[in-house]
Formats: sequence, structure tokens, C-alpha cells
Amino acid sequence: MDSYEVTPRTRLGRLAKRGAYDRGTVHGILDQALICHVGFVVDGHPRVIPTAHWRLGDTLYLHGSAASRMMRSLATGIELSVAVTLMDGLVLARSGFHSSINYRSVVIHGRGRKVTRAAERLRALEAFVEKLTPGRWAELRPPTEQELKATTVIAVPLAEVSAKLRAGPPVDDEDDYGLDVRAGELPLATRAGAPRADPRLKPGMPAPAYLADFNRRFTAPDG
Amino acid sequence: MDSYEVTPRTRLGRLAKRGAYDRGTVHGILDQALICHVGFVVDGHPRVIPTAHWRLGDTLYLHGSAASRMMRSLATGIELSVAVTLMDGLVLARSGFHSSINYRSVVIHGRGRKVTRAAERLRALEAFVEKLTPGRWAELRPPTEQELKATTVIAVPLAEVSAKLRAGPPVDDEDDYGLDVRAGELPLATRAGAPRADPRLKPGMPAPAYLADFNRRFTAPDG
Repeated sequence: MDSYEVTPRTRLGRLAKRGAYDRGTVHGILDQALICHVGFVVDGHPRVIPTAHWRLGDTLYLHGSAASRMMRSLATGIELSVAVTLMDGLVLARSGFHSSINYRSVVIHGRGRKVTRAAERLRALEAFVEKLTPGRWAELRPPTEQELKATTVIAVPLAEVSAKLRAGPPVDDEDDYGLDVRAGELPLATRAGAPRADPRLKPGMPAPAYLADFNRRFTAPDG
Repeated sequence: MDSYEVTPRTRLGRLAKRGAYDRGTVHGILDQALICHVGFVVDGHPRVIPTAHWRLGDTLYLHGSAASRMMRSLATGIELSVAVTLMDGLVLARSGFHSSINYRSVVIHGRGRKVTRAAERLRALEAFVEKLTPGRWAELRPPTEQELKATTVIAVPLAEVSAKLRAGPPVDDEDDYGLDVRAGELPLATRAGAPRADPRLKPGMPAPAYLADFNRRFTAPDG
């Protein structure tokens, strides 16, 4: 199956043409984004918290300190909603009304599962490091038993999931195309700057290739 | 008062040293970020949706189509949580465990209020355009009655609000500083590229100054 099933919660209301459910689109957005926003309910109150995420197959992973309130909540298997958003640009129309933002976003509904098997936890953490900095896992010292115990990893199955996208120039009212208003797009992207060496870095150590490569790997297809 | 009151929901648990409640820090983050993630509860289920936001004084504004499910939900005054996150860089430590992300984030708890007075709605929409593109509101044709009717504006009071920040190099275990591992920061920022003119733009119209200025206005103090 190349597409996720559409459910009542993932069916788009308005602007259904902006929706996408195919794995390629959904995975591409999840893999390019570095952080997500996790929503859950605590004592009846909504709560949204940003955190890093990564993906292996049809599983999204989150992690954090075993002592954190969020991780302890998610580990109980409560319902959650995860949003991942890439902002691709401002859309400057000839009216405020038709001005917009170009974006690619994914929303996931489901429940997290605390990863208890040590092998899956280690494999997941490796995938996280390799997503950001391919080749770095082998450079790092292995995690200690104590570090692994202090880290909670949550697996969220990609089952109830949808993408939503807008791209391209503004779509103005036909009458407005004659106006003397500058219109178009301002492309936006997350870009890495020059790496900063740690003040206590051993002298003479070269910058690794995976940093130089960062912008190419995390850039939109047309960016 | 220069700081927001700390409440049980905004008091940080772990890592309390990363918290900030002063208006300058909170407003700076809200004003630099272009989008937020809004969490709310629908039929008992958490839901998170990305949308643009802007601020006037101690009020955060959201807007959207009056027909959208999210706007109709928020207009009823249900509880919401809004998270705004700026990702400032990767923190590459000498272990996976101490690797981190530099960020500045704000979380707001409260209830939205539908802006019903036409004057406040118009003033808010003007502030949104001027946040992104100062000077552009005067270039655009005024919104029509019908457009204003089709646009819901939600005001969220900044009352229960906190910021959380991490900056600077990794903090490694003392024993790890001797390892041959490249460590430091990879700065990240949202950057604008070259503006793209609308395919139907009238010939000869110059790019406005507010686009050239974008990166300077939306860059972190030390970026």
C-alpha cells in the first residue's frame, strides 16, 4: 500500500485539494523536518510541546528525559496528535485576503508506545543521530547503561496520518491582476550557517563532511 | 509589570534554568516566529494545527477562514495551548546523550476570543501584514466587506505564558572532553531566498524594500 487510509479525522474539510496521503509525500515531510509539535490532554487541558522527531519505516520516534512530564505522560499511551510543518514561503497576493503561506505539513493521530526493548531503543537512537549527521553515530562513544535508562523513547505508529501542502504563486481575484501591487513569493527555508567549534574542542580537528552537507540534505526538492 | 506571572501550568519542571517569563523575551520570540502550533481538544481528542500568528501588546492573534473547522472551534472560546518555536541550531556533543538542540520557544495557555468589532479586526489584520512586510498594507487594496465577513480573527490574551530557551555549546561529561569527537554547534535559522515575481506581475514593477529586508528583521540577535 502506497497511501495511508483516509479516516474521519484525517479527511480534509475545506481545501481538500491540498491534502495528500501517499507515503512518499508524508515521509518526505517528516524526514526533512527536524522538530514536531506534540499535542496531548493533561487533566482535560490541551498541551502542545515542541520536540525533535525522526522516522523509521511506518514509525515516528520521539525521545526525552525519562524524568520529563511529557515523556511520562506519553509513555502511558495517551492519545496524541503530532504536527510537523515546513514553511516554504510567503505568498504575496494583490489583496490581504488572498495572501497566504506556502507550506508542507503532516498531522498524525494516535497513541505512543514506550519502547522497552533495549535493542529497538538503541536502533532508534542511532537512526536519530544518523538522520541529522550521517556517519556520526560511529564517531560517538556508545551510550552507557545509565544514559539509556535515563532516556525514554516513544514510538508512534504512522497509521492515521495526512499531509497538507500549498505551493506556487498567489491566486488573485481576476479583477485584482490589473492593480499596481507587487505580487509573488518569498521563498523561506531552514538553513544552516557556518559550524561553530566547541570552545574546548581538541585543536586541529577537521569539520566533518556531514555538516557541510546539511543544507543540501534538508532542502526542499525545488529549494 | 515586566514579567508574566508563573502559574502551575507554566512553571517548568526539570531544567527550570531554561525558563523565562519576562515580556521582552516572550514578545521577541513571538514576533520573530511566523507560525505557531495550536492545540485544542475536539470530542475528547487532542488536535494540533499549524497557523500563522502575530502580536499586538499582550494579545496574540490568529486568523483563518470563517468556514474552517479550527476557526469555528476556537471561536467558541474552548481552551487552547499555543506553542511557538524557533530552532537556533544543533548542539553536537561528544555523546549522543548530551547532544541537543538550541531553541527559543513560548507556550501559551488560555482561551481564544472571536474578534467581533470590525475596527479591531481591521487593525489586527493590518498588524499581520505589517509584521511580515512593513509598508505593504498601504499598497494593497482595502479588504471588502465580504472578505472581512469570511475571515475569523481570534484574540488570545497573553496571560498564562512562558518561554524556554537553550543556547550555547554542548555541556559534556568531564571525562568525554578528551575524546576525539568533533563537537560544537551548527547554527540554524529560517532564511528568505530571492523573491519570485508572480507570473502575471505587471512588467517593470520593482521589488519592494520590505522583501530585501526580511532576513535582517527576522534574524536572531546573534544570528
